Amino acid sequence: MTFSYNDLLSFTQSIFIKAGCNNNDAEKASIALLSADLRGIDSHGVARLSGYIRLWEKGRINMQANFKIIHETPSTATIDADGGLGLVAGGFAMNIALNKAKNVGTGWVAVKGSNHFGIAARHAMMALEENMIGIAMTNASPLVAPTHSTKRMLGTNPMAFAIPAMHEPAFVADFATTTAANGKLEILQRKNLSAPNGWIQDKNGDNSFDPNELSKGGALLPLGGDREHGSHKGFCLGAVVDIFSAVLSGANYGPWVPPFVAFLEPPANPVGSGIGHFFGAMRIDAFRPADDFLNNMDNWIKAFREAPSIVGQPSVVIPGDPERIAQAERTLNGIPIIDKVVEDLKQLGERMNIAFPLPIQ
Amino acid sequence: MTFSYNDLLSFTQSIFIKAGCNNNDAEKASIALLSADLRGIDSHGVARLSGYIRLWEKGRINMQANFKIIHETPSTATIDADGGLGLVAGGFAMNIALNKAKNVGTGWVAVKGSNHFGIAARHAMMALEENMIGIAMTNASPLVAPTHSTKRMLGTNPMAFAIPAMHEPAFVADFATTTAANGKLEILQRKNLSAPNGWIQDKNGDNSFDPNELSKGGALLPLGGDREHGSHKGFCLGAVVDIFSAVLSGANYGPWVPPFVAFLEPPANPVGSGIGHFFGAMRIDAFRPADDFLNNMDNWIKAFREAPSIVGQPSVVIPGDPERIAQAERTLNGIPIIDKVVEDLKQLGERMNIAFPLPIQ
Repeated sequence: MTFSYNDLLSFTQSIFIKAGCNNNDAEKASIALLSADLRGIDSHGVARLSGYIRLWEKGRINMQANFKIIHETPSTATIDADGGLGLVAGGFAMNIALNKAKNVGTGWVAVKGSNHFGIAARHAMMALEENMIGIAMTNASPLVAPTHSTKRMLGTNPMAFAIPAMHEPAFVADFATTTAANGKLEILQRKNLSAPNGWIQDKNGDNSFDPNELSKGGALLPLGGDREHGSHKGFCLGAVVDIFSAVLSGANYGPWVPPFVAFLEPPANPVGSGIGHFFGAMRIDAFRPADDFLNNMDNWIKAFREAPSIVGQPSVVIPGDPERIAQAERTLNGIPIIDKVVEDLKQLGERMNIAFPLPIQ
Repeated sequence: MTFSYNDLLSFTQSIFIKAGCNNNDAEKASIALLSADLRGIDSHGVARLSGYIRLWEKGRINMQANFKIIHETPSTATIDADGGLGLVAGGFAMNIALNKAKNVGTGWVAVKGSNHFGIAARHAMMALEENMIGIAMTNASPLVAPTHSTKRMLGTNPMAFAIPAMHEPAFVADFATTTAANGKLEILQRKNLSAPNGWIQDKNGDNSFDPNELSKGGALLPLGGDREHGSHKGFCLGAVVDIFSAVLSGANYGPWVPPFVAFLEPPANPVGSGIGHFFGAMRIDAFRPADDFLNNMDNWIKAFREAPSIVGQPSVVIPGDPERIAQAERTLNGIPIIDKVVEDLKQLGERMNIAFPLPIQ
């Protein structure tokens, strides 16, 4: 079934308002959440709405959070998100980073006391409107085993970079620091397919091909998959995201990060507050005349897009191209949602007394 | 054969002085170069000395370079390294980043017109002496094919992060954004072994197991190896390093980066100046009280070091531990150098009229 973006936005806003958000925050949260659906990242969009609400029902999201700057310098700030929605805290923090960059060239903001912030790219891309480079990362509940270990110690800890160009569309990379993100396993589960080698291990640390392995104590693997293919590098990346997001801000880090799912309790002995994010904004003209940079970026993007392909394979994909194409298509034709998620959203609507929209096809 | 660090340092300094460096730069370059040997990264240390000299002989390194700040804001600077040694430009740029961080919380410095800067960790680790977080990255001559392409478009483009702790040794990650760095292929070549699947492709983009494939038009693969295992993420990482290092600074980027080896000519149509680096320094107490961060880092490091191992595998490796152990051992017992490199250094010494030291064992 396919739904109009505006109908989904209005439904999502109403749900957040019903949960106690003010109109302004509800709008910001909904736009951030649905940016995932628009960009084709179905795992991180409206499909998660009932997850946020369940966390709120358990008292684990504060819908009236009061974000506070608890520490700052001319180029940095640390935000206490007061247990609020990461979807809103992300935009709040990114705006501070952008303002600091306007003043002193760059801005860097760490956030504690937060919750899941949606897709990292959404926040990083706020910089593009100011012709700046944007960076966003977040830690997440532990699903990933470091190289050599059986234990889930890190989240899929994504990082996003948004880099403007002159005439070409911006370079927008947003990726989990694992071989494959959890969303890819969910697709395999639905299709009853097995996972490729190097994505997951079982609870003993042996290779597994079972996309349901995480529910049996298994773990996702860092980018690289195994030691011989550089999983220690993927582990480094996930670790840096964790440290920048949570140890710099005072959030929970590593195995102490609270789970997104409401049916799992947070660790009893927290080492910080909520989950953590890290944002950066760099003014282009803090380094060189902006037009020189933007023209070079056009040339960079063209050179890579035109690099010769391997026979039988597509062209080199410029990061952000598939999501941009999805956004254009879905803005025009609506957002497809799988039946299971539609059912879940309908139930949510009934529970919250908000009518779920009819599909447009 | 094993050599004393001080003997190698003195030899290297004399060589750089003979090539025209002033005493000060020769000392800085030698310390930076040999930091690789001390840390066990033999591919990036004194083994490359004759490579730097050959570039100088071809007029492609300026040993009397005058580094200039060509652009700056309170938190940023861009340096023109004037065709000089990256080994020295790296320290120069990192000091500027550290000073800016002292003033406004963070400092970010892009460098153009440079050459190979040795190991990235050396520069990032300068931040540890100031109790700051250090970041260093560089682009390099194209050896890596983006996902789906046959063409070498990126270097192995390493990134390094140095993060201080209280009582635990610092977290120091330094890794190429490829499945395996070129140095690993050289080891296989010497031992006449084949390479694992996922490290290299041949000139048509097919899998290859031949460690000599790069000399036949083949390419290294981005971290992840293939699309199914996330090579598009490794490509993103290498691309970000390239853009931050070279498009921000005005250096050559992507396929235009000049080669380190003197027998290959630089591209005839440069798009910038020399190669590029990017450095960052973040003051811990720009985000939260330093002791809180440092204590949390101790806890982070302990938790990961003590994570349960897979049966038959070693413990989780905290990034920087192997290099720190190598440094302690080599500081005490000297630096082993393989015969081929000793021979090369002896010939270099003869050519430059500097006696190569005797081994200590």
